[in-house]
Amino acid sequence: MNGIFITIEGPDGAGKTSVIKELGPLLERELRIPLVLTREPGGIPIAEKIRQIILDPKNTEMDERTEALLYAAARRQHLVQKIIPAIESGKLILCDRFVDSSLAYQGAGRKIGMDAVASINQFAIEGVEPNLTLYLDVDSDTGLSRIKQGRSAQDLDRLDTESPVFHQRVRHAYLKIAEENQERIVMIDARESLETVIAYCLAAIKEHFPQVF
Amino acid sequence: MNGIFITIEGPDGAGKTSVIKELGPLLERELRIPLVLTREPGGIPIAEKIRQIILDPKNTEMDERTEALLYAAARRQHLVQKIIPAIESGKLILCDRFVDSSLAYQGAGRKIGMDAVASINQFAIEGVEPNLTLYLDVDSDTGLSRIKQGRSAQDLDRLDTESPVFHQRVRHAYLKIAEENQERIVMIDARESLETVIAYCLAAIKEHFPQVF
Repeated sequence: MNGIFITIEGPDGAGKTSVIKELGPLLERELRIPLVLTREPGGIPIAEKIRQIILDPKNTEMDERTEALLYAAARRQHLVQKIIPAIESGKLILCDRFVDSSLAYQGAGRKIGMDAVASINQFAIEGVEPNLTLYLDVDSDTGLSRIKQGRSAQDLDRLDTESPVFHQRVRHAYLKIAEENQERIVMIDARESLETVIAYCLAAIKEHFPQVF
Repeated sequence: MNGIFITIEGPDGAGKTSVIKELGPLLERELRIPLVLTREPGGIPIAEKIRQIILDPKNTEMDERTEALLYAAARRQHLVQKIIPAIESGKLILCDRFVDSSLAYQGAGRKIGMDAVASINQFAIEGVEPNLTLYLDVDSDTGLSRIKQGRSAQDLDRLDTESPVFHQRVRHAYLKIAEENQERIVMIDARESLETVIAYCLAAIKEHFPQVF
């Protein structure tokens, strides 16, 4: 039996973290297979070390293509050591961010180009695509004001300090990816209350994989 | 005026380090433009940190595609921060290893495939190819016995501890790359004495770029 690989995506401030925190236990109660909650680098030591280089605010000279390659490297290691073994042992994996994040943030946000970023990510994932992606959609104004409320200045890493225009490019890229991958991606209006967003997510998972409930 | 970008390539034990050590001062004396001797990660802090992850013998769980992406990331940063500025300021750059090493070691040695490794490296270099590559050719038996003589057990990093078959694949890949890129690559028989190899290298550079001597 093969597992189920679900990713959660969205711009900063879409509320992914809050959603996953409550969606996890809800799923756990109802699922008839084991749940794995994860996000890159996911406690994989090599991926953690790569992530430290990416997010260190001191690395101001980081080129945007270096960054994209590092994300792909950390993704690869997390995929091989954590996601693939979980799929192979029949679990349901809920992963916070995956390739779509790199397409939106590096490809569009940093203007490398979505096709170029897709190609290095194909090298990294070798065709292991999510069975379902929940895309939490929020406009950049709402998203950014949520971020500013929720995090202290020290918490802000390199990505959070980008300009509003950067975040608008990210959101538009997500909308394009969702439009072009309707068979895989369910778009959820993340301006709704947390309760409603969670209900939509749970409903989407149940609809796509009724056999595991 | 644009600079000149030269790379030196070869399997382990071809003698690259010894050659560069003596070729550098020789060039410096005769060149009419400034010389830059470098090798990845080349003192670029971000690239140094990436290199530490790659070469740490404790990272036994490193996936081969993760490794290839990390090499491409370190290469990108070194290229952007060191090689491109040197080219733009009209220098002659002599770089110990570049993309061909990844094609040979990751593509063929680790069996990822040369085309796949070429694609992530194209993402990294964006068309910045060497003007000339000196390929020091040595059969794997000769190369490996030189390595064993020259380095202590503690010096041996993850790559040096690969099997002889790995090193044979690397050498055959180099021969293929040299065959397919004859306009860029000059093959030099590295079984000759160090003095002779250096003379060949110097002659090749003078022949290709007479304007700077």
